[in-house]
Amino acid sequence: MNEDDILADLARHFPDSHASLLLGRGDDAAVVASDTPLCVSSDLFLEDVHFRRDYFHPAEIGHKALAVNISDMAACGARPLGFSLCLGLPPDVGSGWLDDFFSGMAALARRHDCVLSGGDLSACARLCIAVTIWGAGANRGVPLLRGGCKPGDALFVVGQPGLARVGLRVLETSGRGAATLWPDSCAAHLKPLPLVEEAVRIACLPGVVRPPSLMDVSDGIARDLPRLLQGREATRSLGAALCVGENDLHEETRCFAVEQGLDPVGEYLLGGEDYALLGACAREDLAALRKAVPRLRPLGVVTDKAEITINGIPFTAAGFDHFAPGEVCG
Amino acid sequence: MNEDDILADLARHFPDSHASLLLGRGDDAAVVASDTPLCVSSDLFLEDVHFRRDYFHPAEIGHKALAVNISDMAACGARPLGFSLCLGLPPDVGSGWLDDFFSGMAALARRHDCVLSGGDLSACARLCIAVTIWGAGANRGVPLLRGGCKPGDALFVVGQPGLARVGLRVLETSGRGAATLWPDSCAAHLKPLPLVEEAVRIACLPGVVRPPSLMDVSDGIARDLPRLLQGREATRSLGAALCVGENDLHEETRCFAVEQGLDPVGEYLLGGEDYALLGACAREDLAALRKAVPRLRPLGVVTDKAEITINGIPFTAAGFDHFAPGEVCG
Repeated sequence: MNEDDILADLARHFPDSHASLLLGRGDDAAVVASDTPLCVSSDLFLEDVHFRRDYFHPAEIGHKALAVNISDMAACGARPLGFSLCLGLPPDVGSGWLDDFFSGMAALARRHDCVLSGGDLSACARLCIAVTIWGAGANRGVPLLRGGCKPGDALFVVGQPGLARVGLRVLETSGRGAATLWPDSCAAHLKPLPLVEEAVRIACLPGVVRPPSLMDVSDGIARDLPRLLQGREATRSLGAALCVGENDLHEETRCFAVEQGLDPVGEYLLGGEDYALLGACAREDLAALRKAVPRLRPLGVVTDKAEITINGIPFTAAGFDHFAPGEVCG
Repeated sequence: MNEDDILADLARHFPDSHASLLLGRGDDAAVVASDTPLCVSSDLFLEDVHFRRDYFHPAEIGHKALAVNISDMAACGARPLGFSLCLGLPPDVGSGWLDDFFSGMAALARRHDCVLSGGDLSACARLCIAVTIWGAGANRGVPLLRGGCKPGDALFVVGQPGLARVGLRVLETSGRGAATLWPDSCAAHLKPLPLVEEAVRIACLPGVVRPPSLMDVSDGIARDLPRLLQGREATRSLGAALCVGENDLHEETRCFAVEQGLDPVGEYLLGGEDYALLGACAREDLAALRKAVPRLRPLGVVTDKAEITINGIPFTAAGFDHFAPGEVCG
């Protein structure tokens, strides 16, 4: 494969025009029209850090590299519009592998009507994928942010925290065969589905007391909830009283924790990469949000005491630090 | 260093506010205001592919990773507004190295009034940098594109094609010490200066017959000139008659070629990574462009015959293919 072969394959998978693009791929830059402000976010997806080729199919790698970015748009109550792709390819990646990779990425892009505007290709020792995505807040361009919480606000979750963490562990231990016993966990890790429609319904709910706060959970609720509560406000210190019961846990998360002698609720709170949505809203708005998004589950209440309790017991935040020694592939 | 240490250091170097940002770093996405269409481009900058740590200072790596992206904005006649940074860091990179890296990148960002809007951090086996940049066409938001050339148009260059290629070779052979004998070549490879002001003057020249075509030379004139001539037009085939004399070559390029028994003009045409500007304009506009941009040099004439001649002799395009066997660090 040379550069032109790769670009020709890419062109077969990704359309080059979109209502939001004044100019598509093939020049020094694409040109994005922008009637509203644009939410912009970037994520790396690296071999042997975020994924392994021995148990990810190439189409799943393409899917997930884009999904984690689309999830950042969902986290802002925004719909994705376009993305750029930087791709570093090792010598053992052939045209068949790459075609599958593009196919998985293009299917997800199509589902969210999100156009590939360009990017960069290079040789690289290991697969290296960097996506930058942009989108527009679904509620007249206004994004949903972190912070702005008040004591008494209701906390909520959409998605299955803890499930992808089980998937990661069983795939690391048993490889692809783990999917037979742990199908939902493996799917959650291999092919997460960004919750754009749910986020848009949250962003567009009419008549709310206040716009909800929203983020996506990539490092685990234990690490991410303080970020939701803090937002960009330097001085405030809020806490949360969480109620997490057996019913909140996916059956596979519960089974895995029991098998391994772990606390199931701990798995729920520490599990990252589910790309669940975590939010807070005025207490009065919770019922309407639940009606608009049936999968939304109450998680607890914001408090004015700077600690997090789980079912009444104080919890020390841990979760995932990308530079912690010994952490691989999270 | 953990993630929070890195982010704190980053915050010391990069301001978080800018006229073009409605929301800066720290949420799931930044929010970019956009009064005009946005030019968007991305480039990878990878260890042992695009640079080597043994002869690049960390500040130069930070500088060049951003410079190659700013050059894409210049190539569109655009001023950069903001950028996102994906950074994969190997375990042997310490806080001092990273501080120097940020310092080199931040100095260039400041010079071009370009804000860091966010990005992603990860561990990685080798240094991996992916930047996505956006900006606005300096001429009322309208970008300068490739293509649109007509036979008889004047071709021009701003910058020193071939110089960075000499720098790469002497640095690969002799390491950092090469800078004593080949100071300009090494500087061109280690710390290229994107030609934004020159590009803006080209984009904003009043009273032109037609807007010039423009691109930046990253793979060498031999490979990039056909892209300028072709643009996005699938069917047209134009050529060029180039005149390149001794005076067009930087003295170090000429000396190096003579020492190595190479054709100096070949070096001029094959050298990439100088981030020179390559353009075409209506013949009648050339004089005014030269007055507006004194460093601009005529390169020849667009022809209606699909071949490129150099001083009357046909030239077969080669230049740099990122996936050609044996090509490293170009």
